[in-house]
Amino acid sequence: MPPLITLLTDFGTADSYVGEVKAVLASQAHDAQLIDVTHHVPPGDLRTGQYILSRVWHRFPPGAVHLVVVDPGVGTPRRALAAEAAGHYFVAPDNGLLSCLPAGARFLSLPIPATAAPTFHARDVFAPAAAQIANGTALTHLGTIITDPYLSPLPAPRSDGVAVVGEVLYVDRFGTLVTNIPGEMVEPGVRIKIAGTDVGALRRTYGDVERGQFMAYVGSGGTVEVAVREGSAARLLGVGVGAEVRA
Amino acid sequence: MPPLITLLTDFGTADSYVGEVKAVLASQAHDAQLIDVTHHVPPGDLRTGQYILSRVWHRFPPGAVHLVVVDPGVGTPRRALAAEAAGHYFVAPDNGLLSCLPAGARFLSLPIPATAAPTFHARDVFAPAAAQIANGTALTHLGTIITDPYLSPLPAPRSDGVAVVGEVLYVDRFGTLVTNIPGEMVEPGVRIKIAGTDVGALRRTYGDVERGQFMAYVGSGGTVEVAVREGSAARLLGVGVGAEVRA
Amino acid sequence: MPPLITLLTDFGTADSYVGEVKAVLASQAHDAQLIDVTHHVPPGDLRTGQYILSRVWHRFPPGAVHLVVVDPGVGTPRRALAAEAAGHYFVAPDNGLLSCLPAGARFLSLPIPATAAPTFHARDVFAPAAAQIANGTALTHLGTIITDPYLSPLPAPRSDGVAVVGEVLYVDRFGTLVTNIPGEMVEPGVRIKIAGTDVGALRRTYGDVERGQFMAYVGSGGTVEVAVREGSAARLLGVGVGAEVRA
Repeated sequence: MPPLITLLTDFGTADSYVGEVKAVLASQAHDAQLIDVTHHVPPGDLRTGQYILSRVWHRFPPGAVHLVVVDPGVGTPRRALAAEAAGHYFVAPDNGLLSCLPAGARFLSLPIPATAAPTFHARDVFAPAAAQIANGTALTHLGTIITDPYLSPLPAPRSDGVAVVGEVLYVDRFGTLVTNIPGEMVEPGVRIKIAGTDVGALRRTYGDVERGQFMAYVGSGGTVEVAVREGSAARLLGVGVGAEVRA
Repeated sequence: MPPLITLLTDFGTADSYVGEVKAVLASQAHDAQLIDVTHHVPPGDLRTGQYILSRVWHRFPPGAVHLVVVDPGVGTPRRALAAEAAGHYFVAPDNGLLSCLPAGARFLSLPIPATAAPTFHARDVFAPAAAQIANGTALTHLGTIITDPYLSPLPAPRSDGVAVVGEVLYVDRFGTLVTNIPGEMVEPGVRIKIAGTDVGALRRTYGDVERGQFMAYVGSGGTVEVAVREGSAARLLGVGVGAEVRA
Repeated sequence: MPPLITLLTDFGTADSYVGEVKAVLASQAHDAQLIDVTHHVPPGDLRTGQYILSRVWHRFPPGAVHLVVVDPGVGTPRRALAAEAAGHYFVAPDNGLLSCLPAGARFLSLPIPATAAPTFHARDVFAPAAAQIANGTALTHLGTIITDPYLSPLPAPRSDGVAVVGEVLYVDRFGTLVTNIPGEMVEPGVRIKIAGTDVGALRRTYGDVERGQFMAYVGSGGTVEVAVREGSAARLLGVGVGAEVRA
């Protein structure tokens, strides 16, 4: 089974940057399979980067190396990290992107070579580290163990005594509002309110409502989502990331 | 020769969805090569999905598995299909996407596991089936043979006694209008009219006209196309999919 | 080590064209690894295509085959090229895209089969040639050696006796202005002026200025760049490709 390296960045796909990173990976880890998760995280949007990573990494086979670079602080003294959790490997800047890793994750600080371009650590620090991990180098040969990675978890839902109170974490291409309220926290029959609008009790799937109607349901990530069948809930409600959700 | 799985969806590349599908494929079909055809079918646009599939699938080597998911009806009782035609394999919702398969295609209905997310069959139904096919599992082990797939072929040209009458099937990135009129249906010297505008007789290639001029020619898909050299025919004519074409 | 084919085009990723090219590559070079550099060169923008190629190709491992197609003249009598330089291979139209290859590059003219679609040489000429090269066919079996490829190098900086005078070559996703002035041409302490605005002396990295401030620095491609920390220099200055830069 060939090593697998996934890429998740905010580089877009029009510039040379993704190509340069892949060139380093292909040069230094010859038989690794390279899989794009996305390069369309909005520039510098750490929260979106973290959210997408949290949905995807654990579905890849153990042994996968995940290169995750949304790095507005590149060239500041922020550390460069490698990490291991549940048999998966990660390289990322120390800015909270890896906050979703489970308890037991190990973290290391990677040295920054003097020759690294101060504005492109993805190519000159993270890709070489990912390649070495893919080639079987032990993490402890790559850097120094640390115990204080910067963690900035996505907001968690709370109870205010009356309802579960959460928020919109993500809006997808279809205009679906993805919240942070796990399906199992919602009592049967409770109506979902988003930014003050009642969108009804949980349904199972799109087929349960007419076209153009709101629907709340437990989405494929396990949390409550609000969609409009063959429409856009984000547009119809005029809300986005951070909007309050009550269940 | 490693198994090959192609992906054709309307998921876009910004969300986690393509990454989740690839994670399942990489986990369940370790040595498959994953090739993106496109993820930019407009959301829910079955006709565009079908058109792109029809242009691409037969150019891959036999044995390829094509995962094709444009699925506005996910979670309704529409069936999930696997199919085989000309040595190629397909997984797709039963909504007409596979209407372009040639005579002799075999179709099966795939079971929907109770654990599948009702809104994400690409990840939980189609990707596992594609992985199993890539691993060599016989189609008949995956589902139940059916003989009534939903077919909704792209519109065909007709003759009205005076001219061949077709329509624009697709508009590409360059503003080229791709019609459904096969080149061999056009008599030599006949002038092409699109939405009432005469764009001249068939030329061979862009070099045959000046910059900014209309040109009709037999395109790389075998049908009549109308372009503007170093310009956009769609913009200059103000027409799009469905516009009438006479030849 | 499996052969590697990179793809750099202006086809976008929504149409069937990239899929058709990959299908030919997968059919004719079974075990090649396909790596997208980008398909988002603006339509027909040879200068951008050449710039991106110049940044990327030499970072891939020797033996790589680079398919580079930005081809506004497809179907005109422009030649189709294969080339070799520094152990890398290239296929591209003869329109200047390969002007960045180093001295010693060898060029060949590829025959155009009568069956090739006059508007899609990427699929019918360049992809088959790339596949053959990936399979180990000698270049000299593919075409005729030529010594007069069309070369149109990117503009080079000059000195006007007072300052180094260059220009903006590229604007990236982050609004960073990439110039053609190599870092080593800039005397220490010299202030950078772009379209008349003084953006200060060279800094090392983003951490050296406050958010929203201009910063000039030697970028990851080795030339002077002008950025705004967590902002867009292109938008703030209102300039783009071709703007004069003085150092």
